[in-house]
Amino acid sequence: MLPSASLLESFQLSNFTAMLVIYLIAITAEAMSGALAAGRRNMDIFGVVVIAFVTALGGGTIRDMVLGHYPIGWTQHPEYVYLVISAGLLTTVVARHMIRLKQVFLLLDAMGLIAFSLIGCNVALELGYPTVVVIMAGMITGISGGIVRDVLCNQVPVVFRRELYASVSLTVCLMFLGLRALEVNPNISTLVCFVGGLMFRLAAIRFHWRLPMFSYQQRWD
Amino acid sequence: MLPSASLLESFQLSNFTAMLVIYLIAITAEAMSGALAAGRRNMDIFGVVVIAFVTALGGGTIRDMVLGHYPIGWTQHPEYVYLVISAGLLTTVVARHMIRLKQVFLLLDAMGLIAFSLIGCNVALELGYPTVVVIMAGMITGISGGIVRDVLCNQVPVVFRRELYASVSLTVCLMFLGLRALEVNPNISTLVCFVGGLMFRLAAIRFHWRLPMFSYQQRWD
Amino acid sequence: MLPSASLLESFQLSNFTAMLVIYLIAITAEAMSGALAAGRRNMDIFGVVVIAFVTALGGGTIRDMVLGHYPIGWTQHPEYVYLVISAGLLTTVVARHMIRLKQVFLLLDAMGLIAFSLIGCNVALELGYPTVVVIMAGMITGISGGIVRDVLCNQVPVVFRRELYASVSLTVCLMFLGLRALEVNPNISTLVCFVGGLMFRLAAIRFHWRLPMFSYQQRWD
Repeated sequence: MLPSASLLESFQLSNFTAMLVIYLIAITAEAMSGALAAGRRNMDIFGVVVIAFVTALGGGTIRDMVLGHYPIGWTQHPEYVYLVISAGLLTTVVARHMIRLKQVFLLLDAMGLIAFSLIGCNVALELGYPTVVVIMAGMITGISGGIVRDVLCNQVPVVFRRELYASVSLTVCLMFLGLRALEVNPNISTLVCFVGGLMFRLAAIRFHWRLPMFSYQQRWD
Repeated sequence: MLPSASLLESFQLSNFTAMLVIYLIAITAEAMSGALAAGRRNMDIFGVVVIAFVTALGGGTIRDMVLGHYPIGWTQHPEYVYLVISAGLLTTVVARHMIRLKQVFLLLDAMGLIAFSLIGCNVALELGYPTVVVIMAGMITGISGGIVRDVLCNQVPVVFRRELYASVSLTVCLMFLGLRALEVNPNISTLVCFVGGLMFRLAAIRFHWRLPMFSYQQRWD
Repeated sequence: MLPSASLLESFQLSNFTAMLVIYLIAITAEAMSGALAAGRRNMDIFGVVVIAFVTALGGGTIRDMVLGHYPIGWTQHPEYVYLVISAGLLTTVVARHMIRLKQVFLLLDAMGLIAFSLIGCNVALELGYPTVVVIMAGMITGISGGIVRDVLCNQVPVVFRRELYASVSLTVCLMFLGLRALEVNPNISTLVCFVGGLMFRLAAIRFHWRLPMFSYQQRWD
């Protein structure tokens, strides 16, 4: 009944609500990016929906399968499935106008990457996995949907070649675990990870930061 | 001991037997289609067997892994494994004659698609998943074997681009759930789905029905 | 306290230690081969690490997911994860010198293939799966890491097309199960499988043994 407890509770609730809203924005943005990739391969409407689905929900699915975390999230939340299917279909209608919203889209995508990473870390933490697995769970959630999208579109996954994307996920996971070890309030910690991750990602896009490339062309046979 | 109960029992038994026979025909037909795809990529005998296996049994495997339904079907039925391996190897011998049986093959493949879809729906229903997951389980069982086959053969999955195939699976799943909601006898319901699905699939092949295509070629970078 | 029991125990311990050492060598060699494949696709450092990881630990991961064997091995052994990441990164530095060590590398790779196959068989045996599944678990552990590596590098998996590799895994699994049925001492059995498998693999490389190829170019449409 103390004011501070009540305040903290309402803050935590709003934090939870904020994460859910960001998650829903994230899967919508990922579904739309998947649909555009399908369109680049001239897929039919069914292909668009599948690629939208795996891009948005594939990362969490692979994380849950690797961690043995059943039932898998979206199987208990049909509304997520309807949302990503709708986002995929909507994209086929509004695609021609989307390039004008490029900046918005990149922002939503960056928010999604960070939200996915934090959610993935939390799932592995609750299951009691060791630290390196927690980080990998965050990164798997953040980037493997896009990897499956690219494999199904028959191309080398863009995340293995282009500007910092996976590195943002890794940084967010490390910040999150570091702040947790310092026993920082979870809400503040989430906020710091969000702001820090977002700034890192946007700077990486703006200044074309990349990881060093490894090129190896010797033939062994 | 009532005649009607006994009749119903024998009808259900024959329904179960019929589904099993159709399932065995289905995995044989899918294994053969997988072997042909491997041959188009000049694979060796081992590659043929692997592609035959994943085409025939990969869909059910992915469904079980997504639903957390262990042990996975074929691990408890070695005879299925031997059947699909044999079908794959046999295909390398009879391949040159198979084109003459094209019509038969398309019919078996369509029967397989429907059987897989119905089996997938049943598995998810028994595990108590929500409706949209039941439908997805049916479709995953029906089509994801072919998707993995195409990924391993390094091409964009044909099911994302060509005439109605996934749509037949979706229609069968929807019919099955609709008839179930109307409390129609399961045997009659299965029969109706089979006949309806088969007619839809054969009409789609005959008249080259396709889903609308989504083509998007704008570059964002 | 009998000398013989104590001797047997220490022999078993040394056998276990030997298998662990060989396993660690195996995942290191596989990680390095993965990193080279990533370099052939001009991936960045992150791509190199991911491909190294899936090549080394992907086979065991897929086996565990198919068998429902949780928690998956590397999630309980962070040291394996650090080892394969280090091996992947090290490869980017020493790559230009590796071709001189080609013979050593092929030997380590062959040892890895055999160790993976034996470990995979053991896991499925302990879970009580039928014989054909035990053999498949051995082969999945041995070769599917390389299959995922090739899929992520957007090429038809080399194991489906080139000199005997999967066949060595199959032979090792069959020898292991045969010797087990004959109730041969597990340590001797492991040793025999190792020597036999290694000779088979090296002969296959030396004499360019291949499985017959299946080539099928008829178009059906």
